[in-house]
Amino acid sequence: MPSVPPPGLLHEVAIPLGDRSYRIDIGSGLLAQPGTWSGLPRAAAAMIVTNETVAPLYVASLREALRPQFSVLHQVVLPDGETFKDWQTLNRIFDALLAKGCDRKTVLFALGGGVIGDMTGFAAACYMRGVPFVQVPTTLLAQVDSSVGGKTAINHPLGKNMVGAFYQPLRVVCDLDVLATLPSRELSAGLAEVIKYGPIADMAFLDWIEAQLPALLRRDPVALAHAVRRSCEIKAWVVGQDERESGLRAILNFGHTFGHAIEAGLGYGEWLHGEAVGCGMVLAANLSQRLGLVDVAFVERLTRLIAAAGLPVRGPALGVQRYLDLMRSDKKTEAGDLRFVVIESPGHAGLRPAPQQLVREVLAQGCA
Amino acid sequence: MPSVPPPGLLHEVAIPLGDRSYRIDIGSGLLAQPGTWSGLPRAAAAMIVTNETVAPLYVASLREALRPQFSVLHQVVLPDGETFKDWQTLNRIFDALLAKGCDRKTVLFALGGGVIGDMTGFAAACYMRGVPFVQVPTTLLAQVDSSVGGKTAINHPLGKNMVGAFYQPLRVVCDLDVLATLPSRELSAGLAEVIKYGPIADMAFLDWIEAQLPALLRRDPVALAHAVRRSCEIKAWVVGQDERESGLRAILNFGHTFGHAIEAGLGYGEWLHGEAVGCGMVLAANLSQRLGLVDVAFVERLTRLIAAAGLPVRGPALGVQRYLDLMRSDKKTEAGDLRFVVIESPGHAGLRPAPQQLVREVLAQGCA
Repeated sequence: MPSVPPPGLLHEVAIPLGDRSYRIDIGSGLLAQPGTWSGLPRAAAAMIVTNETVAPLYVASLREALRPQFSVLHQVVLPDGETFKDWQTLNRIFDALLAKGCDRKTVLFALGGGVIGDMTGFAAACYMRGVPFVQVPTTLLAQVDSSVGGKTAINHPLGKNMVGAFYQPLRVVCDLDVLATLPSRELSAGLAEVIKYGPIADMAFLDWIEAQLPALLRRDPVALAHAVRRSCEIKAWVVGQDERESGLRAILNFGHTFGHAIEAGLGYGEWLHGEAVGCGMVLAANLSQRLGLVDVAFVERLTRLIAAAGLPVRGPALGVQRYLDLMRSDKKTEAGDLRFVVIESPGHAGLRPAPQQLVREVLAQGCA
Repeated sequence: MPSVPPPGLLHEVAIPLGDRSYRIDIGSGLLAQPGTWSGLPRAAAAMIVTNETVAPLYVASLREALRPQFSVLHQVVLPDGETFKDWQTLNRIFDALLAKGCDRKTVLFALGGGVIGDMTGFAAACYMRGVPFVQVPTTLLAQVDSSVGGKTAINHPLGKNMVGAFYQPLRVVCDLDVLATLPSRELSAGLAEVIKYGPIADMAFLDWIEAQLPALLRRDPVALAHAVRRSCEIKAWVVGQDERESGLRAILNFGHTFGHAIEAGLGYGEWLHGEAVGCGMVLAANLSQRLGLVDVAFVERLTRLIAAAGLPVRGPALGVQRYLDLMRSDKKTEAGDLRFVVIESPGHAGLRPAPQQLVREVLAQGCA
């Protein structure tokens, strides 16, 4: 009797970007199925870029599934963590590609979370001025946010994601099964980016997240599938209109200006990116309220949900001036003015400068 | 009585690349005239990237001319030479941009030769995922080749220009007056790339170069203006058809596969890039002859011209196997096959694999 087929592909989300269009496949057991990888350009060689945590879990099955497509499969295993999202570690990818004689047609596979995806994407953008790459995100955060949309980067000691490129993958494959091995803290960090899509774009989705939070926290596959799908749909809609962040796309950075300051202020890796964004959304919602855009009840509701997702809602005690200094080097800054993504009204976000006094009040009140 | 206006703009060459189109201005005294820089996007700040050799000669007059356009002008002065075309030196540009709080609208000015242009362009491509930049080439080689077309890169210990991006400048400004301070060796190196355009695209231009070589070597302004203009026209025609080197553009690398091996084999900076390309063209012409594409007279004619321009025509004694190993990591390699730009017939070039035995013969005969 034939075995029951794996549930396989549940959803496909298209990213419409002209000749750089691609799709996100969302489903169970995708990673290990050869069929998942069909349709990618044939090349002599592929290189899997992953980290020390993910490699023992998934490299073997990905290699097995890729075998029909590529005659040579290389891999490079990087150390795990945001502290390694730097030039030295990026250069290990170039070293490996050159040592193996990889040419311009070599396909890179980013197997890991946001750090691996950002670094592999940037390496693909730069190696011989551009080689193709595929995102295989293994964290919830990477599946719902960082693997989609083509933002790639490394950190600089003076700022997060300061050196990078807009460079689109050939495909994104979100295998929901891999979320089973995710540490709880990483699951919560991913939920921060899921929650983000509610206040900026879809309050009905926020209602759904509130109702399904217990199911999401116990990793119910149906709930996770919908969370990933809806998040990707919203991201696709935004990125399709503004690939290079000349306007609308900035709304996806709701909570990130405060969040990046937290990450840089504490030292990268102390808080997870999603944790900093969770707390950053509370601060940005507070700022929106002080600007008269949303009411206190909205801020309290969002704060409760973020806390219930297992995320911090108070910033670390860096000192108000330190926060301001760190935020001044944010990429949204223009001619020295601090600019923030704020909630204009529930379900709608925008980028605007904020009076420094209001920002100081938010920081003084919202940080331990 | 009003003073006589400087001769100013002599030629404009358009690079047709859709929304990335730009123009090359060629003329005398352009650098120091504020009018040269009008029409560039207004931004609070600009940063001039230059090197220790060029800075004392031209930074002051460029700053003066840019003053009406930008309220703040920063500069970063890098060490001079191909050995510094690496990540450490590139990172000094990022350090300076971040230390000065430069935002996404900051315009970078690459004031220097090919190394400064390649590094500044790559820094512009990556800083905050892309800021605008302007090429102000100060060597003949940069004016006729490297500043035009958007190829940017740094070297990797295992290969030249292995890490980079296709990223177009806003404008290229070729001030012919700056060629007066160019060392003779650099002038000859630039002539290598000028000569290149003849055999690959325009034999009438080759005739002209032969006739005008004495004038070019004594830096006759009219001869230099035509050499720069015609070179840029041919490059614009090629790049306009194939921006990302998926086909035709490879012909611009005539002589470069051998040349890159020479540069890497001797250590970057030992021979100038143009010197290695000059010698590389002799080797590539020999290969073309052995493939039965051109006759011995053609090879001899080209070799004579390259020698007369003050360039080496015999490769250094690296050993045949070392040459082959170095060429195997060239970006034109595909699935392990060495591929070369050859002269298909005088005035026409193409990319093709070559039997290893023929390549060995060319190297054995053509290298000291």
